[in-house]
Parts: sequence; C-alpha cells; structure tokens
Amino acid sequence: MDHASPRAEELAAALAGRLIHDVMGRLSGIMSGLDLLADPSARDMHADALNVAAASAMGLREEMAFCRVLYGASAAPMDARMLEEAARGLFADHRASLEWSVGAKELPAPAGRALLGFIRIAAGALAAGGVARAAAARAAQGVVVRVEAAGPRAKVKPEILAGLQGGPRGDGLSGQWAPAYQIWAGARAQGGNIEVSAGDGGVVFEARFPA
Amino acid sequence: MDHASPRAEELAAALAGRLIHDVMGRLSGIMSGLDLLADPSARDMHADALNVAAASAMGLREEMAFCRVLYGASAAPMDARMLEEAARGLFADHRASLEWSVGAKELPAPAGRALLGFIRIAAGALAAGGVARAAAARAAQGVVVRVEAAGPRAKVKPEILAGLQGGPRGDGLSGQWAPAYQIWAGARAQGGNIEVSAGDGGVVFEARFPA
Repeated sequence: MDHASPRAEELAAALAGRLIHDVMGRLSGIMSGLDLLADPSARDMHADALNVAAASAMGLREEMAFCRVLYGASAAPMDARMLEEAARGLFADHRASLEWSVGAKELPAPAGRALLGFIRIAAGALAAGGVARAAAARAAQGVVVRVEAAGPRAKVKPEILAGLQGGPRGDGLSGQWAPAYQIWAGARAQGGNIEVSAGDGGVVFEARFPA
Repeated sequence: MDHASPRAEELAAALAGRLIHDVMGRLSGIMSGLDLLADPSARDMHADALNVAAASAMGLREEMAFCRVLYGASAAPMDARMLEEAARGLFADHRASLEWSVGAKELPAPAGRALLGFIRIAAGALAAGGVARAAAARAAQGVVVRVEAAGPRAKVKPEILAGLQGGPRGDGLSGQWAPAYQIWAGARAQGGNIEVSAGDGGVVFEARFPA
C-alpha cells in the first residue's frame, strides 16, 4: 500500500495531535481541581478538588509512561512484567478486563510495542465491556503477538483498521488512525506483518515477526 | 537529501518522544505541588504548593496550545495575532525578548507553522539572553518568514541544524532534531525551502514559500 503512504511529517503531526488531545483532556481535570482549590469560598470542596486534580495528574502520568514505551526508540528487549504493568494500567478503571498470558520473560522491542498498541486498541474497542486477551509466544519462525478483544459489542473504527493495514485514514479521525498506522509501520520495518480478523464475538489482532 | 530520510514512523516516534518529555517535565511540577497539598503536616506551605502546581499546569496548557498550532493539520490561513500570542508565551519567563514585525493579518498555514517553529528554536538558542526578531512578509514570489536569534551566545545544536536541512539527526538528541526536521519537511511539502545562516551576532532562520 505504498501508494497511499502518508508523508513522514503528516504521520508525525497526526500522532502529535493525538498526544496533545489526550494530554489536554487530563489537564482540564487537573486545572478544574486547582481552580477550586484556589477559591477560598469553596473550602468545603477542597478535599474533593484535590482528589480530582491528583487523580487526573496520576492518569496523565500513567498515560505518558505508556506512550513512552509505545513510541520508544530503544531496540533493547522489553521486560514482560513491565509490559503487563503498562497494559493493566489501561484497564484499571475500565468496564472490560485484561487476561495476560505472555510466557516469555522478555519480548523483542518491536513485538512489545505491537502488543501494547493492540491492547490500547482493544481497550478502546471494549468500551462497553468484555475481555481483552493478550498473548505472545516465541516460535521457531519468530515471535507472534496476539490480542483478542472479546465482547458482544466490540467495535473497531474503520480508520483504525485502515491504519493497521498501512492504509490512509480516509474520512476518519487522524487521532485514531495515526497510532494504528504507527503499529503497522513499526512492524513492517522489522519484516513483520499484521492480521486483523473480526467475528461475532469480537476482534483479533495478530502481529508476526520473523526470527 | 532523500537518501537520509527517516522512515515515517521514526519521525513520528521521535516527535512523540519530545512531546512526552516536555509533558513529563511540567507534570512533575504539578505532582510535587499536589503532593504537598495532600500533606496535612505541611499546611504552612499549601499556598506555595498551590502556586507551583497552578503555574506548572498553566505552563503545560500553553505548551500544548503552542504545539497544537505547530503540529496542526489545518490548511486554513493563520491569524497573525494568534501566532504572536503563541510566540510571546514562549518568552514570558525568558531571559531573551521577542520583537515581532509581521505586517500581514494572516499567514498561510505552512508559513505560520515555520514561523512558530523557528521562534521556538530561537528561544532555545537564546537561553543566555538576547533578542529574537520574528518577521514575515508577502512578496510577489510568495511568502518569506524570518527569525533572527540575536545574542552574543546564541547557539543552535548540530542536530537542529541537520533537521532544518532535512538531514539525519546523527549522534544528536532526537527530541531536538525531530521538531526541526518537521519544519523542513512541512516547508518542502509546500515547495518551500529553508536557509540558516550563523554569524558572530547570532543565527538567522529563513523559509521561503512560493505563491
């Protein structure tokens, strides 16, 4: 699908836009808490305001930590427990739950990033509830990572599916498309490939990397 | 310099990394303020703590607003006053000052983004003080934007100069290189070109866009 490849600066801007959007969302929680705290006439609400601000700040920190791994440049193998922790953070206040079955202690960095990227898409697809099942296995032929978003109402936006196949975002939101395209491009750069299959019970995301 | 072009996902990851780094810096100010506010034994410091947290949160909001323009995708002309406001925000607590001489009421979006990008680089180059002079003019041949970082100790990192010329980051920091490369790529996509000239008194950044 190279004919449809975005220019580098277009992808970079779209991914930056998504990050900025996510930061702004958390930041508004922080700022409304701080505004209340600065209002002496609202003293009875100060404890709540501090909780709101602190929860938003923690949420932002978790999200940035997650994205730092997801968009990291390091080629060093990734610790599976660190990946699990990052993944569990996404499901802390979520209707869906996460099942984690990664046997290896470490994953090659591109596989680890694909896994986290899939899990974030699965978390988005399961807004109405369900189970995300994350798995990774080393095989003779290489590494396979697989995330299943299982739920009766699991739904993946077309621009995400397009991105995961290296396609253009079409009329969709670039903030949804860009992280998906980033997963595809990261996998392809390593000789990997991605498959997505959707059925009645949910959606399965799989990435295969050569040894 | 296409032989040295980064892959799209490399540029995107590097730019995301820079954003995450900047957010984390501000966020640590917010969190240390909130931690103090949550400590009942530090009541005498609560007013200061609230100020620290609020100032960091405002700083983060300004930075995100700046980056939203800098990395925006809209092709609509940009209001010159909005650009000036964004630029002045960078110099609010800065040793250097900003001189603004943009006569037009609006600038084409690519020119506006290049101007803001140059100004941010100039602000970084003038950490020891000086004057950043920002100018933009429409000519028959197109639009020229020009930023001079004037100061005896004005300094631009090699990875920034490389990025502004569409070159690879080399051994430099990708967080410095990526925004510079983004300016170059954005200008080139519009048929524009960039020139940087350094002298004893400072550094001049210029971008020319065809009409």
